[in-house]
Amino acid sequence: MTRNEELENLYGPAAKDLPAVTELIQSVASQPELEFLRQMLSAALAGSGKLLRPAISLLSARLGEYNLSLAAPLAASVELLHTATLVHDDVIDQADQRRGEPTPNALFGNSASVMLGDYMFANAADFIAQTDKPIVVRKFAKTIMEMAQGELVQDSHVFEYSDDINRYLNQIRGKTAVLFATAAEGGAIVCDADRDTISAMRGYGMNLGMAFQVVDDILDFTGDASLMGKPIGSDLMSGNITLPAILYMQKNPSNPIQHAFEGVRRTSNIKKAIKEILADDSIFWEAKNIAREMCDEARESIDDLPDSTEKKVLLNLVEYTFSREH
Amino acid sequence: MTRNEELENLYGPAAKDLPAVTELIQSVASQPELEFLRQMLSAALAGSGKLLRPAISLLSARLGEYNLSLAAPLAASVELLHTATLVHDDVIDQADQRRGEPTPNALFGNSASVMLGDYMFANAADFIAQTDKPIVVRKFAKTIMEMAQGELVQDSHVFEYSDDINRYLNQIRGKTAVLFATAAEGGAIVCDADRDTISAMRGYGMNLGMAFQVVDDILDFTGDASLMGKPIGSDLMSGNITLPAILYMQKNPSNPIQHAFEGVRRTSNIKKAIKEILADDSIFWEAKNIAREMCDEARESIDDLPDSTEKKVLLNLVEYTFSREH
Repeated sequence: MTRNEELENLYGPAAKDLPAVTELIQSVASQPELEFLRQMLSAALAGSGKLLRPAISLLSARLGEYNLSLAAPLAASVELLHTATLVHDDVIDQADQRRGEPTPNALFGNSASVMLGDYMFANAADFIAQTDKPIVVRKFAKTIMEMAQGELVQDSHVFEYSDDINRYLNQIRGKTAVLFATAAEGGAIVCDADRDTISAMRGYGMNLGMAFQVVDDILDFTGDASLMGKPIGSDLMSGNITLPAILYMQKNPSNPIQHAFEGVRRTSNIKKAIKEILADDSIFWEAKNIAREMCDEARESIDDLPDSTEKKVLLNLVEYTFSREH
Repeated sequence: MTRNEELENLYGPAAKDLPAVTELIQSVASQPELEFLRQMLSAALAGSGKLLRPAISLLSARLGEYNLSLAAPLAASVELLHTATLVHDDVIDQADQRRGEPTPNALFGNSASVMLGDYMFANAADFIAQTDKPIVVRKFAKTIMEMAQGELVQDSHVFEYSDDINRYLNQIRGKTAVLFATAAEGGAIVCDADRDTISAMRGYGMNLGMAFQVVDDILDFTGDASLMGKPIGSDLMSGNITLPAILYMQKNPSNPIQHAFEGVRRTSNIKKAIKEILADDSIFWEAKNIAREMCDEARESIDDLPDSTEKKVLLNLVEYTFSREH
């Protein structure tokens, strides 16, 4: 299957307009006078990911009075904002790699990466403003606030033992779900969909985003390290407690992760804990069940929308999110 | 003179509305759930500076159909954006102090300060969007792009010898003048001033901002260290060549600064160069002359505006910018 066929399978009628979005995104990299900045932007924007977030924006826009000259900049700003956030998060987490590729901070240093992220945020703002809907600018602004706060919370809890599932759910909301929600709702708003559709799409995006992150956190343990571009259990190794670790701790009150985090020989003890988590299939069944419930809620959110190709594609995307393997 | 009297002397009819702007800015600090973020915001927004940029926005807004509920968020976003930029710049420049106060990165670390800046940028965007003028959002976005690029250029030239005055002018344009221009133009736009007024105010802000930075760079040598909150010659000490150093080099082709930057015992050689610069009064006369020309251009930019209290205050601000001593 070629990449185009794959995107068409996934995104149906939205696939054909993704190149317009990619073109807008790439235009950002050719714009600055400063060659060093162009290089950094090219590197940061190079990965041709699945474009899930912008595709959801386009599908959502098609539920209103579809206008590509509004929907494309909106979708481009979603992807730019997502990437800008990753650039700054990688600075903070001192991450050298993401999906097997060197991060901008590894390539260009922390200082330059801070400015790179700022430049990308500004471009995202510029694209949103082109949709001529200040309310969407405000929604994006609030999204950045929630994401920044979420990253601060995660950063402050690193290597801090906790089996509080609500803390985890809050964390993945700020980390992933709010941007999915804004992407999903934004398309409908800029193309003047009715109020019920806008609200349905926000619920869809929020729940899908939650499920997406839970699946991500499961794959951090069960995925193929070479496909994921990161070692098994990398979250726990870097001190972030995600759902599988929480479920494991709840079943093992002797708290081996607490010991691993707080005791000596941290690395080897965390590795031991990862092995124990992997040995217990029931943890992953339970985690998958939680993801399934979120997926059900995503489906329910758009239940009342009239039947359409777009609705069908959105429902398929829920299944895709649930079953993806990397 | 109380602070209020001082502000009224400086900003005339705009002074009475500055508290509304300060209130908006301070509201940002009380908003987040996360206490750590509230603390950081309070620290970053604590300094009660002169509020020159927001005051210019308010004066500019008064040249149109003045509406405080549009002008205040615009002015607040100008100040927030300015402060957010300083937060990220201080991370990059590894600055421990600014105007004698510890920087956020010194207080809270680099990582948290990156998110702090992002959070403030997002709030600035939220405020601008409240003015319901997407064109202003775009102007602010372009301003951030220019400022980020400017900081990258400056960062890449640290301890690189150059007596190129155009490079310097470009640098202070991105560092300071573009935000002054946007602040000055933004007020007029959100309050629907006519096209000529908008364009006059942009020119005024750009030229005033250039002059402001030149004066700043002079004061870095000639100012009172305790009032400035930084040691004499701090720019050159940290590897940034500003106007007085350029003029000195042009008069001394033996290039002592090049030697200081590129040779051994850098710190003591730069200190020697600073002493030599300070010993030559003519350098500062010349630098002041360049600032005066920029001030003249700022005045000329608004020459054609009809007489008004606001115009008089704007003209006085040019003189204030030229003659300030810290």
